Amino acid sequence: MIIQLAPDADTDLVKRALVAAGLWVTALHDGSRRVSHFSVSSASSAVEATDLLRIPGVASVVSPASAHPRVDASPSTVDVRGVVVGGASRVFMAGPCAVESESQIDAVAARVAAAGAQLLRGGAFKPRSSPYAFQGHGEVALRWMRRAAEANGLRVVTEALGEADVTLVAEYADLVQVGSRNMQNFSLLKAIGRTGRPVMLKRAMSATVDEWLLAGEYLLEHGAAGVIYCERGIRGFDHATRNLLDLGAVALLAHVHHLPVVVDPSHATGRRDLVLPLARAGLAAGAAGVMLETHDDPGRALSDGPQALMPAEFSTVMASLRSGSAEA
Amino acid sequence: MIIQLAPDADTDLVKRALVAAGLWVTALHDGSRRVSHFSVSSASSAVEATDLLRIPGVASVVSPASAHPRVDASPSTVDVRGVVVGGASRVFMAGPCAVESESQIDAVAARVAAAGAQLLRGGAFKPRSSPYAFQGHGEVALRWMRRAAEANGLRVVTEALGEADVTLVAEYADLVQVGSRNMQNFSLLKAIGRTGRPVMLKRAMSATVDEWLLAGEYLLEHGAAGVIYCERGIRGFDHATRNLLDLGAVALLAHVHHLPVVVDPSHATGRRDLVLPLARAGLAAGAAGVMLETHDDPGRALSDGPQALMPAEFSTVMASLRSGSAEA
Amino acid sequence: MIIQLAPDADTDLVKRALVAAGLWVTALHDGSRRVSHFSVSSASSAVEATDLLRIPGVASVVSPASAHPRVDASPSTVDVRGVVVGGASRVFMAGPCAVESESQIDAVAARVAAAGAQLLRGGAFKPRSSPYAFQGHGEVALRWMRRAAEANGLRVVTEALGEADVTLVAEYADLVQVGSRNMQNFSLLKAIGRTGRPVMLKRAMSATVDEWLLAGEYLLEHGAAGVIYCERGIRGFDHATRNLLDLGAVALLAHVHHLPVVVDPSHATGRRDLVLPLARAGLAAGAAGVMLETHDDPGRALSDGPQALMPAEFSTVMASLRSGSAEA
Amino acid sequence: MIIQLAPDADTDLVKRALVAAGLWVTALHDGSRRVSHFSVSSASSAVEATDLLRIPGVASVVSPASAHPRVDASPSTVDVRGVVVGGASRVFMAGPCAVESESQIDAVAARVAAAGAQLLRGGAFKPRSSPYAFQGHGEVALRWMRRAAEANGLRVVTEALGEADVTLVAEYADLVQVGSRNMQNFSLLKAIGRTGRPVMLKRAMSATVDEWLLAGEYLLEHGAAGVIYCERGIRGFDHATRNLLDLGAVALLAHVHHLPVVVDPSHATGRRDLVLPLARAGLAAGAAGVMLETHDDPGRALSDGPQALMPAEFSTVMASLRSGSAEA
Repeated sequence: MIIQLAPDADTDLVKRALVAAGLWVTALHDGSRRVSHFSVSSASSAVEATDLLRIPGVASVVSPASAHPRVDASPSTVDVRGVVVGGASRVFMAGPCAVESESQIDAVAARVAAAGAQLLRGGAFKPRSSPYAFQGHGEVALRWMRRAAEANGLRVVTEALGEADVTLVAEYADLVQVGSRNMQNFSLLKAIGRTGRPVMLKRAMSATVDEWLLAGEYLLEHGAAGVIYCERGIRGFDHATRNLLDLGAVALLAHVHHLPVVVDPSHATGRRDLVLPLARAGLAAGAAGVMLETHDDPGRALSDGPQALMPAEFSTVMASLRSGSAEA
Repeated sequence: MIIQLAPDADTDLVKRALVAAGLWVTALHDGSRRVSHFSVSSASSAVEATDLLRIPGVASVVSPASAHPRVDASPSTVDVRGVVVGGASRVFMAGPCAVESESQIDAVAARVAAAGAQLLRGGAFKPRSSPYAFQGHGEVALRWMRRAAEANGLRVVTEALGEADVTLVAEYADLVQVGSRNMQNFSLLKAIGRTGRPVMLKRAMSATVDEWLLAGEYLLEHGAAGVIYCERGIRGFDHATRNLLDLGAVALLAHVHHLPVVVDPSHATGRRDLVLPLARAGLAAGAAGVMLETHDDPGRALSDGPQALMPAEFSTVMASLRSGSAEA
Repeated sequence: MIIQLAPDADTDLVKRALVAAGLWVTALHDGSRRVSHFSVSSASSAVEATDLLRIPGVASVVSPASAHPRVDASPSTVDVRGVVVGGASRVFMAGPCAVESESQIDAVAARVAAAGAQLLRGGAFKPRSSPYAFQGHGEVALRWMRRAAEANGLRVVTEALGEADVTLVAEYADLVQVGSRNMQNFSLLKAIGRTGRPVMLKRAMSATVDEWLLAGEYLLEHGAAGVIYCERGIRGFDHATRNLLDLGAVALLAHVHHLPVVVDPSHATGRRDLVLPLARAGLAAGAAGVMLETHDDPGRALSDGPQALMPAEFSTVMASLRSGSAEA
Repeated sequence: MIIQLAPDADTDLVKRALVAAGLWVTALHDGSRRVSHFSVSSASSAVEATDLLRIPGVASVVSPASAHPRVDASPSTVDVRGVVVGGASRVFMAGPCAVESESQIDAVAARVAAAGAQLLRGGAFKPRSSPYAFQGHGEVALRWMRRAAEANGLRVVTEALGEADVTLVAEYADLVQVGSRNMQNFSLLKAIGRTGRPVMLKRAMSATVDEWLLAGEYLLEHGAAGVIYCERGIRGFDHATRNLLDLGAVALLAHVHHLPVVVDPSHATGRRDLVLPLARAGLAAGAAGVMLETHDDPGRALSDGPQALMPAEFSTVMASLRSGSAEA
C-alpha cells in the first residue's frame, strides 16, 4: 500500500496519523527534500483505505488489486456435510496418520467420536519422503474409514495424493485434504477443485500466507465448495521441534482475512508432550478447530507413531480442549 | 540420545517400545544387518533414561552431559522484588518502547498499574538498527521510570545495552533486560550476571533453544539471581508479520524445562491488530506472562509506534488477558 | 554416525583423532563419568568408517543404512541424448521461462545454440502461484520447442507439471524437468520415473539435501534413466534476492555425493545483474552446468521477464562462463 | 522504489519498459481501474532513477533516502596497513580459530606467510556459546600474534569481543574484527568505530543485507577507517553444513554496492572437505578475499578443530585459490 500526499500536506502530521493507525511507513521522495509518498510495510495492521483518505494531507491510497478475489469473497465458515467449521463451535478432527486395518480404524473411530470430535482423519494414500516407506492401503482403506465414520456419526477427512486418485477420494471423503507437499501442485488443486467438495488445504513448509491463499484461490476457481486452511508447522532452523507452528499466520487468517483455519499440533511439534499446549495456543490464536493424531498402539504405527497420542492421553487432551478453560 | 541394544535384543520389540514412548528413532548398525543402537531425534518427547532402561533389550542409554547445569537446577519461578514470575499468577509487563519524557512515563505508568500489570517496561538505552535513530534518553529516563514505577506500585524492567551502562541500569531496574540483539553478547551477559539482579533474556532472532539456554547459563554462572526467558519472535521468511512467534519454544521451556518464559506479542507481530490473539496464544502455550507495548500517543512515539497499543485498546487487551477466558 | 569406544579406550586420544579427521563430536555417557560413545554431527567432513576403525580405542562405527541406495549407486554423469552432464565439459541449458510462440522459440533457440549451449529450456506447462496467470501453451509449445531444438542441434529440457501430461512431455523432451513445487509430488515422481527418461529434479524451496536425494530415489526406483539435480535457490528471510542460492548444497552433491548438479542463477536471484557472478560461483562450487533464462524481448515475456537475460547480455554471459576464466 | 505514472501514460508500455529494465513491478491503483503507480520489488536489478525517468509515461520515481549514506559514499577498497582489500589482488587471511600458545601461532604464521596470505587471523578473546568453553588467552595472545605477524610480514586481524577490550585489541590489530554475534551490539560498534581502525564486520546469523550495511554505518559514523564485510554463513534449516553461505549477498555487496567483502568458508560449512569449493565460489561471486582457518594439529585445537585445514591441505588450498584457475 502506498499513500500519496497532497502537494501542501504537512508530512509530519500525516505520518503521525498513519503511525497512530498502526502502519509502518517509510517516506519516499524523488531526490528532492519533499516527501511525496509513504510506503506501508506488509507487517502493518489492516486498515481501510477509506479511513486513511480522511487524514488531512492524504491525496490517494493505492494498492495492488487482490490476487485472490474468490478467497476474499468466501464466507468465514465451511460446511462439511453439516459440520460447520469456522462458526461458534470448535471442530475437532482426529484419527491415525494412516488407516492400517479395518479393526484399527473401527477402534479409533469409536474413541474419536466418544471424545467429542466431529471428523475422522486417516490416510489411505500417504505422501512419504522415502519410496520404501509404507504408501497407504489405497481404496480399501477409504472404504474402511467411511464405514467406521458412518458407524460413529463422524465425517471423513482424507488426503488426495495424486490426480488419478481424486475422484475416488472425493467419493469417500466429506472433506478432501491437500497435503503440505502438494500445496503448490497446481494440477492436483485443479482436479480437487473440480470435484466440488470442500477442501482442507495444508500450508506448505515454506509458503507465505499469500501463496497459501493463492492455492485456495486455485481450489475455489475450479469449483471447491469451500476451503479450510490448516497450519501444520513450517520449516524452522531449530530441530527441538519437528516443525515450527506459525500462530501469527493463524491469527492473520482468522482475524484479518476471516477465514476458517485449523491447527495440526501433532505435525507441528512431532512431540506428544507438546500437543496439548500448542492445540490450546492454536485455538487461542483464532483457530476454528484442531486436527490431532491418535493411535491405539503407536508403537506399531506404520507412520508417525511418536507423535500420535495414546488412547488415554487423547481423551484427556480432548476433554481439556473442549472445556476450553483458560487453564487448558 | 542413543539407545544401545543388548546382543540378544529383539530389535522390533525395542523399537516398538521406543516409539510408544514418543521417540523418533533411527536404527544404527556397523554395516552388518544387526542393529546395535537406535539414535533418538531431538524432536522426540522428553523421556527419562531410567524408563527406557526398563525396556527389555535396552542395554544402555547414553547422552551428552547437559551443557547448562545451572539452568537445569534453577527453579521454575523468579522473584522480581516480590513479584513472582512463573508461579500461579500471570505476570504482565507493559509500557512504551522508549521512555520519552517524564510526563509520558508518568501517564503510562498510571494506566499500566490501573490495568493490573505488575511491571513497567520502557527503554532508556535503545538498540536501533540505524545510528541516526533515537538512541534513548539514558540515565534521566531511568530516573523518570523509577519514580513513575514507585508512584504506582510497579516493578521496573529495562534494557542494559552496553557494558558501561550495566551498573547504572541495575541500580534503577528490578529486572534487567537483555535485548535479542545482545543474547550472545557474552561480555554483556557476564557484566549483567555480576550485578546479581534477576534478568529477562530475550531470544535472539535465530537462536536455537539450546543457545538461548546457554545464554541463560552465562548469566547464572556469573551471578544472576534468576533468568526469565522472553520469546519475541524469530526471523521468518514471510513479512506478513514483523517476526515469527515461536510458541513451540515457549511450550518447550514451560512444560519440558520448567522455566519461566514470557511472550512479547508486540515485537513478534508488529501488528496491533494481532497482539491480543497472540498474547492469549502465548499464555495458552505455557507462558508465565506477557510483555506489551503501549503508548499514550503512538503517532508521536520515537520508536515502534505502529505496534504500541492505544490507551483504550491496552485496557481492553489487559482485561481480556486477565479474565483468562478461553473466548478471550 | 556414532563411534563406540572400547572399554579401555583413552577418550582424549580418540577424540583428538576424530577431530583431526574433520568430525564434530559430542561425548556420550550413561550418567557415569565414563564416555562410551561419541556422536558425530551431520555437518562433519565425510570420512569412511574403515578409516575410523583404525583409530586405537574405537570399537565400532555405527550409522543408519542409506535411505537412497539407488542414488548412491548411480554414476556421476547422466547422458541426455548424447550430451553428458557431470563429465569433463560444462553443460549449458538456456531459453525462455515459457514458450510463447513459434517465432519466439525459433529465435531464442538459434541464439542459444550460437552461444554454445547444448540444451534448450522452455515451459509448455507452467506452474504459477496465481490461477489467473499464464499457464503455458501446452502441447503445441512442446512441438514448437522440439522443432526449434532439432533445427539447432539442441536437446530439449521442459517441465512435466501434472501426471496427465507426463507421457506427452516425455515424448518431446530429452530431459524431463520436475519443478521445485513438485519435488515432493510423489505421484508425479513415480509417473515421470516410469517414462524411463533422464530427469532434472529441482530442489524444493525448503528441502533438505536428504529430502532432495530421496526424491531422486523415487525417480530411480520407478525407472528414470538418471537424475540431474538443479539448485535454484531456497527460501530465505532477506528479500534482496528472489531466493537464496545454496552453494554449500551444490558442493555437497558434487564433491561428497558425486552427483551431477546444475545451478539456476536466474531463479535464485531474480536479478539479471547478479546472474553472471552467481553462475560463475555455482560452477566454482562444483556444478556441472548452468541453466539460464533468456528472452528476445523480456518486457513482453509472459512470465519472469525481469530475470531473463537480454540477447546481448546472454551472449556475453555465455562467453564469460565458457571461457571459464577466473575473472569470469 | 515507486514509479508514478503520468495521467495519460500507456500503462502496458510503461510496464514493458520497466520489466525490460529488470524490475519486478506490481500495478497499484486506488480502486478504480486506472493504474497510477508501479511498486518495484527489492529483488529487482539495480537501475538508476534517471534511466527510468526517460521512459515515456513515467512522471516520477520515488524511493526512500538511503539509510546508510556513509556506506554508500565509502570507497570499494580498504587499506589495512598497506594491504588493499577490494582492489585488483585477492587477499587471504588465515590462521587458527584461537591463539593457543606462542609456539602455535609462530608455526602457523610462518606457514600462512609461506602460502601467500597477507593477514594472520587468530582469536585472543573468543565468543563461545558455552560459559564453560575456552574463552581465549586475552592480552598475552595479542602479543604473541603481533610478534608472529611482524616476524612474517603479515597484518593482524583479530576480534574485539567486549567494549572493555576494544582499546587493547586496536593497539595490536591492524584490522579489528566484529564477530557475527556482535553485529548488532551497537555499544561495541561505537567503541570500535572510535578507535579509527579499519574493521572487518561479520554478518549476523540472520541479518538482512540492509541490517549489515547499517551496522557498517554505525562503524563509519563513529570513526572507523573503513569496513570490510565478511560473509560467514547464515542460519539455515539443513544441518548438512554448519551454516548456509549466502553468495547472493556477496555478489550484491561486490557488484551492486561496490563494497569490499570477504568470505569465510570455514565457518560457513564447518566441513574441511567443502572449504576449497566454497572459497572458489566466493571469489567467483565477487569476494575480494577469503578467510581460512588452519591449525598445525586440529585434533588439539581448543575450538573449531574439525573445520581447520591441516597444514598440507592449507597449502594446497591456498595454491589453488591463488592460481585462480577456473578449474580450481
